[in-house]
Amino acid sequence: MSGGQQQRVALGRALVKEPDVLLFDEPLSNLDARLRLTMRGEIKHLQKNLGITAIYVTHDQVEAMTMADRIAVMSGGHLQAFDSPEELYDRPKTLFVAGFVGNPPMNFVDVEVSQSNGGFVVKTDSISMDVPKERGEKPAAYDGSVILGIRPEDVAITPDGDVSGEVFIVEPLGRENLIDVRVGSLSFLILAPSEDGHKIGDNVKIKFDMDQVQFFDPQTEKSLLWTQ
Amino acid sequence: MSGGQQQRVALGRALVKEPDVLLFDEPLSNLDARLRLTMRGEIKHLQKNLGITAIYVTHDQVEAMTMADRIAVMSGGHLQAFDSPEELYDRPKTLFVAGFVGNPPMNFVDVEVSQSNGGFVVKTDSISMDVPKERGEKPAAYDGSVILGIRPEDVAITPDGDVSGEVFIVEPLGRENLIDVRVGSLSFLILAPSEDGHKIGDNVKIKFDMDQVQFFDPQTEKSLLWTQ
Repeated sequence: MSGGQQQRVALGRALVKEPDVLLFDEPLSNLDARLRLTMRGEIKHLQKNLGITAIYVTHDQVEAMTMADRIAVMSGGHLQAFDSPEELYDRPKTLFVAGFVGNPPMNFVDVEVSQSNGGFVVKTDSISMDVPKERGEKPAAYDGSVILGIRPEDVAITPDGDVSGEVFIVEPLGRENLIDVRVGSLSFLILAPSEDGHKIGDNVKIKFDMDQVQFFDPQTEKSLLWTQ
Repeated sequence: MSGGQQQRVALGRALVKEPDVLLFDEPLSNLDARLRLTMRGEIKHLQKNLGITAIYVTHDQVEAMTMADRIAVMSGGHLQAFDSPEELYDRPKTLFVAGFVGNPPMNFVDVEVSQSNGGFVVKTDSISMDVPKERGEKPAAYDGSVILGIRPEDVAITPDGDVSGEVFIVEPLGRENLIDVRVGSLSFLILAPSEDGHKIGDNVKIKFDMDQVQFFDPQTEKSLLWTQ
């Protein structure tokens, strides 16, 4: 039998016993990409239909995100988070979770956040940007520089961007290009539509969606937005 | 030294000799995801700057897509294609290439294509859709059923869709949901914005972007659009 067939037989054997809990330990790790995708869906569907609680261990963050109702993220023996996939993605509670969940990964930059003229401003040596109160208020209260996080899909290359940079690498992913833009010594990964046709060496302007930025305490590596 | 450091040292040693050709054999396979991403960019940038021709062997289709100017796709000892990443993605010459390149993978359905009222129509037992001449003319000339291919990002869940289906699985990927919609016995993977909030069991309508469909000869598995 093929690897996929063996997996399905093993799953069937476990299910006929109608257990109270199903324990999976990397069940799909030996399958090829397409079969893994199919089996992922089949297991999730079966589990929902049967209503049997399942604990599923995986190193594959996409598998965790796609299959789980709630994910316990472990790193170095410590529980980093225990949240829904949406929570992990939109409101990561630690720097580790923010960098681990999502592909391509979140960009991180050291910044200073301060209050100015009733609003809030994010600054580095080369960048200065307004940030809405909901995101800027807590990091502004922090004494010293903090870590700003922003996902590649929340940065756009656009003529009305407020930060100038240079295209360092263009990586075609098919539907989109993954573009590494260098701003001084900083590097930002950006997802841009393939048809925009950016080239290595292009001078570009980039714009951050400041409604989507994350901030982390550089000491504790905890979120300044989603934890006390 | 860590795996990443060893890789960089090995790369440095190869480069000082200023070779005419660089041969890479899965150089990044032992690195973790984030380091692989960084090294991918560094190698590509170095290679472009030095102008040394490089042959790079990998099983990782994302690595191939992102790093290569031209990709030779091998399967079962046969050369399937030798094209640019954009060509492979937008105009795959074989069924294998179409299914292998791109993640999540292309959907495939057996269909009949025929001419009708001056236009072209794609039909299955449960689906009937118009297709533009540029895509429909060649498969309509084929005698018998053909394989239609469409990527998950080219199918939309929308109230004005022309095909009714049921949501079988919703897999959150963070930015988007990967949704498996069942239409009778057919299954389509669809990428939809997370905020659309589709749920398992929802009755939905789906719409194909017929400017993006591929057609393949079921016997030879060659494209009916991009090969003679």
